[in-house]
Amino acid sequence: MGDEESVLFSNDRFYAAFSGKDFDAMEQLWCWEKVTCVHPGWQPLYGREDVMESWEVILGEESAPNVRCRAPRAAVFGDMATVVCIEELESAFLCATNVFVRKAGSWRLVHHQAGPVNVHPEELPDEPEVAFN
Amino acid sequence: MGDEESVLFSNDRFYAAFSGKDFDAMEQLWCWEKVTCVHPGWQPLYGREDVMESWEVILGEESAPNVRCRAPRAAVFGDMATVVCIEELESAFLCATNVFVRKAGSWRLVHHQAGPVNVHPEELPDEPEVAFN
Repeated sequence: MGDEESVLFSNDRFYAAFSGKDFDAMEQLWCWEKVTCVHPGWQPLYGREDVMESWEVILGEESAPNVRCRAPRAAVFGDMATVVCIEELESAFLCATNVFVRKAGSWRLVHHQAGPVNVHPEELPDEPEVAFN
Repeated sequence: MGDEESVLFSNDRFYAAFSGKDFDAMEQLWCWEKVTCVHPGWQPLYGREDVMESWEVILGEESAPNVRCRAPRAAVFGDMATVVCIEELESAFLCATNVFVRKAGSWRLVHHQAGPVNVHPEELPDEPEVAFN
Protein backbone atom coordinates (compact mmCIF):
# COMPACT_ATOMS: atom_id res chain seq x y z
CA MET A 1 0.00 0.00 0.00
CA GLY A 2 1.44 3.40 -0.98
CA ASP A 3 1.56 6.37 1.38
CA GLU A 4 -1.47 8.07 -0.16
CA GLU A 5 -3.51 4.88 0.06
CA SER A 6 -2.55 4.27 3.69
CA VAL A 7 -3.53 7.85 4.62
CA LEU A 8 -6.85 7.43 2.84
CA PHE A 9 -7.33 4.18 4.76
CA SER A 10 -6.87 6.06 8.06
CA ASN A 11 -9.21 8.77 6.79
CA ASP A 12 -11.82 6.06 6.10
CA ARG A 13 -11.36 4.77 9.65
CA PHE A 14 -12.00 8.30 10.95
CA TYR A 15 -15.32 8.48 9.09
CA ALA A 16 -16.22 4.93 10.14
CA ALA A 17 -15.71 5.97 13.79
CA PHE A 18 -17.62 9.21 13.16
CA SER A 19 -20.67 7.68 11.48
CA GLY A 20 -20.55 4.59 13.75
CA LYS A 21 -20.47 6.87 16.83
CA ASP A 22 -17.54 4.79 18.05
CA PHE A 23 -15.74 6.97 20.58
CA ASP A 24 -13.13 4.33 21.45
CA ALA A 25 -12.08 4.06 17.81
CA MET A 26 -12.08 7.87 17.52
CA GLU A 27 -9.82 8.17 20.58
CA GLN A 28 -7.33 5.73 19.08
CA LEU A 29 -7.18 7.61 15.79
CA TRP A 30 -6.06 10.92 17.33
CA CYS A 31 -2.48 11.74 18.20
CA TRP A 32 -1.54 12.34 21.83
CA GLU A 33 -0.12 15.82 21.50
CA LYS A 34 -0.65 19.21 19.88
CA VAL A 35 -4.00 18.30 18.32
CA THR A 36 -6.50 20.92 17.16
CA CYS A 37 -10.07 20.69 15.91
CA VAL A 38 -12.54 23.12 14.33
CA HIS A 39 -16.11 21.81 14.24
CA PRO A 40 -18.46 23.79 11.99
CA GLY A 41 -19.38 27.04 13.76
CA TRP A 42 -17.61 26.08 17.01
CA GLN A 43 -14.68 27.90 18.49
CA PRO A 44 -11.37 26.19 17.70
CA LEU A 45 -10.29 23.53 20.19
CA TYR A 46 -6.67 23.09 21.25
CA GLY A 47 -5.13 20.07 22.95
CA ARG A 48 -6.20 16.45 23.23
CA GLU A 49 -8.39 16.91 26.30
CA ASP A 50 -10.70 19.51 24.73
CA VAL A 51 -10.72 17.81 21.33
CA MET A 52 -11.66 14.38 22.69
CA GLU A 53 -14.29 15.93 24.96
CA SER A 54 -15.90 17.46 21.87
CA TRP A 55 -16.01 14.10 20.10
CA GLU A 56 -17.55 12.49 23.17
CA VAL A 57 -20.36 15.08 22.99
CA ILE A 58 -20.83 14.83 19.22
CA LEU A 59 -20.74 11.02 19.05
CA GLY A 60 -23.05 10.80 22.04
CA GLU A 61 -25.82 12.82 20.44
CA GLU A 62 -28.83 10.71 19.54
CA SER A 63 -29.66 13.10 16.73
CA ALA A 64 -26.16 13.15 15.23
CA PRO A 65 -26.49 12.85 11.45
CA ASN A 66 -24.80 10.13 9.45
CA VAL A 67 -21.62 11.34 7.79
CA ARG A 68 -20.30 9.96 4.53
CA CYS A 69 -16.90 10.90 3.18
CA ARG A 70 -16.88 11.76 -0.54
CA ALA A 71 -14.04 12.49 -2.95
CA PRO A 72 -11.11 12.43 -0.50
CA ARG A 73 -7.74 13.64 -1.82
CA ALA A 74 -4.52 12.90 0.02
CA ALA A 75 -1.23 14.76 -0.17
CA VAL A 76 1.70 13.20 1.67
CA PHE A 77 4.74 15.21 2.78
CA GLY A 78 7.11 12.79 4.46
CA ASP A 79 5.59 11.80 7.79
CA MET A 80 2.68 14.25 7.60
CA ALA A 81 -0.27 14.35 5.25
CA THR A 82 -3.40 16.31 4.45
CA VAL A 83 -6.70 14.89 3.27
CA VAL A 84 -9.32 17.25 1.83
CA CYS A 85 -12.76 15.73 1.36
CA ILE A 86 -16.47 16.41 1.26
CA GLU A 87 -18.61 15.30 4.18
CA GLU A 88 -22.09 14.33 3.06
CA LEU A 89 -24.59 14.73 5.88
CA GLU A 90 -28.24 13.91 5.60
CA SER A 91 -29.22 17.37 4.45
CA ALA A 92 -25.98 19.25 3.86
CA PHE A 93 -22.43 19.10 2.58
CA LEU A 94 -19.32 20.23 4.41
CA CYS A 95 -15.73 20.45 3.25
CA ALA A 96 -13.19 18.97 5.64
CA THR A 97 -9.45 19.13 6.15
CA ASN A 98 -7.89 16.22 8.04
CA VAL A 99 -4.19 16.40 8.91
CA PHE A 100 -2.32 13.21 9.82
CA VAL A 101 1.10 12.51 11.31
CA ARG A 102 2.83 9.13 10.96
CA LYS A 103 3.65 7.67 14.37
CA ALA A 104 5.24 4.21 14.63
CA GLY A 105 3.92 3.31 11.18
CA SER A 106 0.33 4.50 11.78
CA TRP A 107 -1.27 7.72 10.58
CA ARG A 108 -2.75 9.64 13.53
CA LEU A 109 -5.01 12.68 13.30
CA VAL A 110 -3.57 15.95 14.56
CA HIS A 111 -6.15 18.31 13.08
CA HIS A 112 -9.70 18.37 11.71
CA GLN A 113 -11.67 21.31 10.35
CA ALA A 114 -15.07 21.14 8.65
CA GLY A 115 -17.09 24.01 7.24
CA PRO A 116 -19.86 24.81 4.76
CA VAL A 117 -19.14 24.22 1.09
CA ASN A 118 -20.92 24.87 -2.16
CA VAL A 119 -20.85 21.54 -3.99
CA HIS A 120 -22.86 19.88 -6.69
CA PRO A 121 -23.05 16.27 -5.49
CA GLU A 122 -23.36 14.92 -9.02
CA GLU A 123 -19.88 16.33 -9.70
CA LEU A 124 -18.29 14.36 -6.87
CA PRO A 125 -16.31 11.33 -7.99
CA ASP A 126 -17.09 8.05 -6.22
CA GLU A 127 -13.48 6.93 -6.07
CA PRO A 128 -10.77 8.68 -4.06
CA GLU A 129 -8.23 10.58 -6.11
CA VAL A 130 -4.60 10.88 -5.23
CA ALA A 131 -3.27 12.79 -8.22
CA PHE A 132 -2.80 16.54 -8.35
CA ASN A 133 -2.87 18.97 -11.26
CA MET B 1 14.05 31.63 16.52
CA GLY B 2 12.33 28.36 17.47
CA ASP B 3 10.28 26.26 15.04
CA GLU B 4 6.93 27.51 16.35
CA GLU B 5 8.06 31.13 16.09
CA SER B 6 9.36 30.68 12.55
CA VAL B 7 6.08 29.08 11.47
CA LEU B 8 4.14 31.95 13.04
CA PHE B 9 6.41 34.37 11.18
CA SER B 10 5.48 32.70 7.87
CA ASN B 11 1.83 32.76 8.92
CA ASP B 12 2.17 36.53 9.52
CA ARG B 13 3.67 36.92 6.04
CA PHE B 14 0.64 35.10 4.61
CA TYR B 15 -1.75 37.55 6.27
CA ALA B 16 0.44 40.52 5.26
CA ALA B 17 0.20 39.35 1.62
CA PHE B 18 -3.54 38.70 2.05
CA SER B 19 -4.45 42.07 3.57
CA GLY B 20 -1.91 43.91 1.40
CA LYS B 21 -3.40 42.30 -1.73
CA ASP B 22 0.15 41.37 -2.72
CA PHE B 23 -0.20 38.53 -5.19
CA ASP B 24 3.56 38.20 -5.83
CA ALA B 25 4.23 37.69 -2.13
CA MET B 26 1.31 35.24 -1.95
CA GLU B 27 2.73 33.23 -4.86
CA GLN B 28 6.09 32.95 -3.15
CA LEU B 29 4.56 31.71 0.08
CA TRP B 30 2.87 28.68 -1.47
CA CYS B 31 4.60 25.39 -2.14
CA TRP B 32 4.96 24.20 -5.72
CA GLU B 33 3.21 20.87 -5.41
CA LYS B 34 0.19 19.12 -3.93
CA VAL B 35 -1.37 22.30 -2.54
CA THR B 36 -5.05 22.54 -1.60
CA CYS B 37 -7.26 25.45 -0.57
CA VAL B 38 -10.79 25.80 0.78
CA HIS B 39 -12.11 29.37 0.70
CA PRO B 40 -15.28 29.94 2.75
CA GLY B 41 -18.22 28.49 0.83
CA TRP B 42 -16.16 27.67 -2.28
CA GLN B 43 -15.56 24.21 -3.63
CA PRO B 44 -12.18 22.82 -2.59
CA LEU B 45 -9.30 23.66 -4.93
CA TYR B 46 -6.56 21.16 -5.75
CA GLY B 47 -3.17 21.89 -7.28
CA ARG B 48 -1.09 25.05 -7.52
CA GLU B 49 -2.66 26.33 -10.72
CA ASP B 50 -6.23 26.45 -9.38
CA VAL B 51 -5.15 27.65 -5.93
CA MET B 52 -3.08 30.55 -7.26
CA GLU B 53 -5.81 31.49 -9.73
CA SER B 54 -8.20 31.81 -6.77
CA TRP B 55 -5.81 34.12 -4.93
CA GLU B 56 -5.40 36.24 -8.02
CA VAL B 57 -9.19 36.71 -8.11
CA ILE B 58 -9.53 37.33 -4.36
CA LEU B 59 -6.60 39.74 -4.08
CA GLY B 60 -7.72 41.56 -7.22
CA GLU B 61 -11.14 42.39 -5.84
CA GLU B 62 -11.55 46.08 -5.07
CA SER B 63 -14.07 45.24 -2.38
CA ALA B 64 -11.92 42.57 -0.67
CA PRO B 65 -12.14 43.12 3.09
CA ASN B 66 -9.10 43.68 5.26
CA VAL B 67 -8.08 40.53 7.09
CA ARG B 68 -6.38 40.51 10.47
CA CYS B 69 -4.98 37.34 12.00
CA ARG B 70 -5.85 36.88 15.68
CA ALA B 71 -4.72 34.30 18.24
CA PRO B 72 -2.62 32.05 15.97
CA ARG B 73 -1.45 28.75 17.47
CA ALA B 74 1.30 26.72 15.83
CA ALA B 75 1.98 23.00 16.17
CA VAL B 76 5.18 21.73 14.56
CA PHE B 77 5.66 18.08 13.59
CA GLY B 78 9.16 17.79 12.12
CA ASP B 79 9.13 19.51 8.74
CA MET B 80 5.38 20.14 8.68
CA ALA B 81 3.25 22.39 10.84
CA THR B 82 -0.32 23.52 11.39
CA VAL B 83 -1.43 26.99 12.41
CA VAL B 84 -4.99 27.49 13.62
CA CYS B 85 -6.09 31.11 13.92
CA ILE B 86 -9.01 33.50 13.78
CA GLU B 87 -9.38 35.77 10.76
CA GLU B 88 -10.96 39.08 11.70
CA LEU B 89 -12.71 40.65 8.71
CA GLU B 90 -14.46 43.97 8.80
CA SER B 91 -17.80 42.49 9.75
CA ALA B 92 -17.17 38.83 10.52
CA PHE B 93 -14.84 36.28 12.02
CA LEU B 94 -13.56 33.12 10.35
CA CYS B 95 -11.49 30.28 11.73
CA ALA B 96 -8.58 29.24 9.53
CA THR B 97 -6.26 26.27 9.24
CA ASN B 98 -2.92 26.90 7.55
CA VAL B 99 -0.62 23.95 6.90
CA PHE B 100 3.07 24.55 6.19
CA VAL B 101 5.90 22.35 4.93
CA ARG B 102 9.57 23.25 5.48
CA LYS B 103 11.42 23.46 2.16
CA ALA B 104 15.10 24.49 2.11
CA GLY B 105 14.71 26.16 5.49
CA SER B 106 11.53 28.12 4.64
CA TRP B 107 7.98 27.29 5.65
CA ARG B 108 5.73 27.08 2.58
CA LEU B 109 1.95 26.85 2.57
CA VAL B 110 0.47 23.59 1.31
CA HIS B 111 -3.10 24.08 2.56
CA HIS B 112 -5.50 26.78 3.71
CA GLN B 113 -9.09 26.43 4.87
CA ALA B 114 -11.26 29.17 6.35
CA GLY B 115 -14.83 28.89 7.56
CA PRO B 116 -17.37 30.55 9.84
CA VAL B 117 -16.70 30.48 13.56
CA ASN B 118 -18.53 31.52 16.68
CA VAL B 119 -16.06 33.67 18.60
CA HIS B 120 -16.24 36.34 21.21
CA PRO B 121 -13.55 38.80 20.12
CA GLU B 122 -12.94 40.02 23.64
CA GLU B 123 -11.81 36.48 24.51
CA LEU B 124 -9.12 36.45 21.84
CA PRO B 125 -5.60 36.95 23.16
CA ASP B 126 -3.51 39.62 21.43
CA GLU B 127 -0.31 37.60 21.52
CA PRO B 128 0.23 34.35 19.62
CA GLU B 129 0.33 31.25 21.76
CA VAL B 130 2.51 28.26 21.07
CA ALA B 131 1.74 26.10 24.08
CA PHE B 132 -0.85 23.35 24.18
CA ASN B 133 -2.92 21.94 27.01
